[in-house]
Amino acid sequence: MSRQSNRTTDSKKMNSELFTLTYGALVTQLCKDYENDEEVNKQLDKMGYNIGVRLIEDFLARSSIGRCQDFRETADVIAKVAFKMYLGVTPSVTNWSPAGDEFSLILENNPLVDFVELPDNHSTLIYSNLLCGVLRGALEMVQMAVDVRFAQDTLRGDNVTEIRMKFIKRIEENLPAGDE
Amino acid sequence: MSRQSNRTTDSKKMNSELFTLTYGALVTQLCKDYENDEEVNKQLDKMGYNIGVRLIEDFLARSSIGRCQDFRETADVIAKVAFKMYLGVTPSVTNWSPAGDEFSLILENNPLVDFVELPDNHSTLIYSNLLCGVLRGALEMVQMAVDVRFAQDTLRGDNVTEIRMKFIKRIEENLPAGDE
Repeated sequence: MSRQSNRTTDSKKMNSELFTLTYGALVTQLCKDYENDEEVNKQLDKMGYNIGVRLIEDFLARSSIGRCQDFRETADVIAKVAFKMYLGVTPSVTNWSPAGDEFSLILENNPLVDFVELPDNHSTLIYSNLLCGVLRGALEMVQMAVDVRFAQDTLRGDNVTEIRMKFIKRIEENLPAGDE
Repeated sequence: MSRQSNRTTDSKKMNSELFTLTYGALVTQLCKDYENDEEVNKQLDKMGYNIGVRLIEDFLARSSIGRCQDFRETADVIAKVAFKMYLGVTPSVTNWSPAGDEFSLILENNPLVDFVELPDNHSTLIYSNLLCGVLRGALEMVQMAVDVRFAQDTLRGDNVTEIRMKFIKRIEENLPAGDE
């Protein structure tokens, strides 16, 4: 499904519940389609990646945010602008590595899991893994290769949800891109 | 995935784009899973129904709206409160049947299709059919049996998106429900 060229950037604010339930339908469908949780996790990450590479353009248009000076600024923009914009919540940025190349996003309240309990037979499902893919895909489009994974998850009994992000490298803009 | 009992009703307002792209991933997945558009349409309606029967509780809690006096009031609540709340848009209510048992919701702007063009090989796909299921499921929970279908769709070249709703009957509350 390709993108319409005449799309406007007028903002449509909505409550998160329909999104939350629709996301649940997506995860449920993938659990039917794939044999095990690992495959579902991988698929969610892949879908998220494809979403992220498209969402970044919308994000840059809406936020008018330019290139970040460093990974700390990137972290703040993700937490305070991007999460707020697309999920309606603002995670805290914490647990920086001494080298400044890793941090955690702590979500007190993950809107994706509002109506959810993991069934016993899906104990290794990373339910919200789409978000990791979205972050990875979006950042890749602004020349940052990052590793993103869930370190804690309230669905698995943790007190908070923690997304751990690690800077890998800056992608050189003058490398030939596969698509062009 | 069952519902958490301790969920709060604090409102998380979000932009619609992440939802729109996630919905696109769901439809794309279903197009992979099912043989033809008719099956995908049916599946989207079914998923929507399951969402609607859960979303109505959230809607009643948030909106504090009581029982509607008639189908005209129902139409207004759907358009002005429910669509606004969960999709961020307000369709117009129009094309009433003389008997007052049918109307149309006209969406100038359907957020679900913001990034979408239908591929040629999916000419019979009713892309946003989840919405019909949501409306049907939600209204069933407030004792109204309705028929809901897309009459026009901008994705198929129409100027607007038109959802046609037909009142079938009031469901008697004192019938034994399957679940109780």
